Amino acid sequence: MSGGWLAIAGLGPGDDMLVTPEVSAALGDATDVIGYVPYVARVPAREGLTLHPSDNRVEIDRANLAIDLARKGHRVVVVSSGDPGVFAMAAAVFEALEHGDPTRRDIDLRVLPGITAMLAASARAGAPLGHDFCAINLSDNLKPWPVIERRVRLAAQADFAMAFYNPRSRSRPEGFARVLDILREECADERPILFARAVSTPQEELRIVPLPQARADMADMRTMVIVGSSQTRIVPRPGAATSWLYTPRSLAMVP
Amino acid sequence: MSGGWLAIAGLGPGDDMLVTPEVSAALGDATDVIGYVPYVARVPAREGLTLHPSDNRVEIDRANLAIDLARKGHRVVVVSSGDPGVFAMAAAVFEALEHGDPTRRDIDLRVLPGITAMLAASARAGAPLGHDFCAINLSDNLKPWPVIERRVRLAAQADFAMAFYNPRSRSRPEGFARVLDILREECADERPILFARAVSTPQEELRIVPLPQARADMADMRTMVIVGSSQTRIVPRPGAATSWLYTPRSLAMVP
Repeated sequence: MSGGWLAIAGLGPGDDMLVTPEVSAALGDATDVIGYVPYVARVPAREGLTLHPSDNRVEIDRANLAIDLARKGHRVVVVSSGDPGVFAMAAAVFEALEHGDPTRRDIDLRVLPGITAMLAASARAGAPLGHDFCAINLSDNLKPWPVIERRVRLAAQADFAMAFYNPRSRSRPEGFARVLDILREECADERPILFARAVSTPQEELRIVPLPQARADMADMRTMVIVGSSQTRIVPRPGAATSWLYTPRSLAMVP
Repeated sequence: MSGGWLAIAGLGPGDDMLVTPEVSAALGDATDVIGYVPYVARVPAREGLTLHPSDNRVEIDRANLAIDLARKGHRVVVVSSGDPGVFAMAAAVFEALEHGDPTRRDIDLRVLPGITAMLAASARAGAPLGHDFCAINLSDNLKPWPVIERRVRLAAQADFAMAFYNPRSRSRPEGFARVLDILREECADERPILFARAVSTPQEELRIVPLPQARADMADMRTMVIVGSSQTRIVPRPGAATSWLYTPRSLAMVP
């Protein structure tokens, strides 16, 4: 082992001011940084640091490389955007540890949390996740589509605000449209939908649309979608580009 | 206005290494810090900074004080633990702005996200929130108890992992016991429950218990509870105090 360790770290949504000191310290001590190309590109090169960018959908290979290097004595950081525990690399590393040789579990391993996309998007818009909420990954790469539909429907019945990760990709453009249809079936009201694109980066764009007017093409691969609950409120701001959006802390009536 | 602003900031779960540089910068520029006593106590006193600690359950008074000071030209930070948008002060400030004099909406206002308790707890245990999940505040101070029961039941039917904030307080010790009964009714399996107390502080304690053995008195006011989904896995570690807990990214079967 000779001092090797593995940290699975969240880089937050994009702005370096949202990277925790814990993550910065781990990156400063690392000998190796492993992750998806655009996330590794956020780590500045320096002497003594090997960058290992890899393509999407090779998460388990990446996890095994990280585990093996750390057990050989390297100081390894696996980077994810946002929080590593939310639809990101942490689960892939534990999957590799569960299914691989059990002796590898002697590894010195830490998960370093980060600002996940829904919290960054929520902060920019106001506080739409200020009451009970759920987070659903709309990608059906790793789960059957009917499970997604069922979860969205039950979440609407529970009157959760909802944060949708990966709402839309080129390979499955019709899924998110179907989710919007389900929401319109389950929610009779005009509740607001937040489309928050590339939050905390120079490409940031926010847009709030009432559910009846929401369209799937308002989201792309860099968009986080937050659906209000029945209680979510819009507070207009004179002269500002977007209104504030928030969900009150208190709920007087049974929905 | 003369340069006044209001930042609603998340201090994270307790460790200063989990405070974002954005929040530290706002605290460094502030003239006034406002919040619940134990959170204000985390901000070091310095010349030119007025600390305004206040008691629990006066969130709207606190919000109005912050808005009024900022509009008089003060640089004000309202502090919450964790993330200010998750069961914390941001929603209270927008509530005050919605229901107060609309001219106050000219305020220079930012919400600065933080590491919320569920992400810190999840990171310490592994990655139990690695697939779809929900966050429910079990306090019935601000919502009727039947809504909580209904949400827990629907969340179990949706097979979400669940993060429970405020699971148990002295004033309502029976609520969480009732929630555990509902989970046992809805979930026939031995899924793991994580009790994560005071994460990232010297008092940190983690405990993983299968649902049939979970008891309400395993949680107190400083405990975050995470309930696994039907897919959540325990990975034993030889020689370690606690096993790793994670929810796989992929779901092969319809639950």
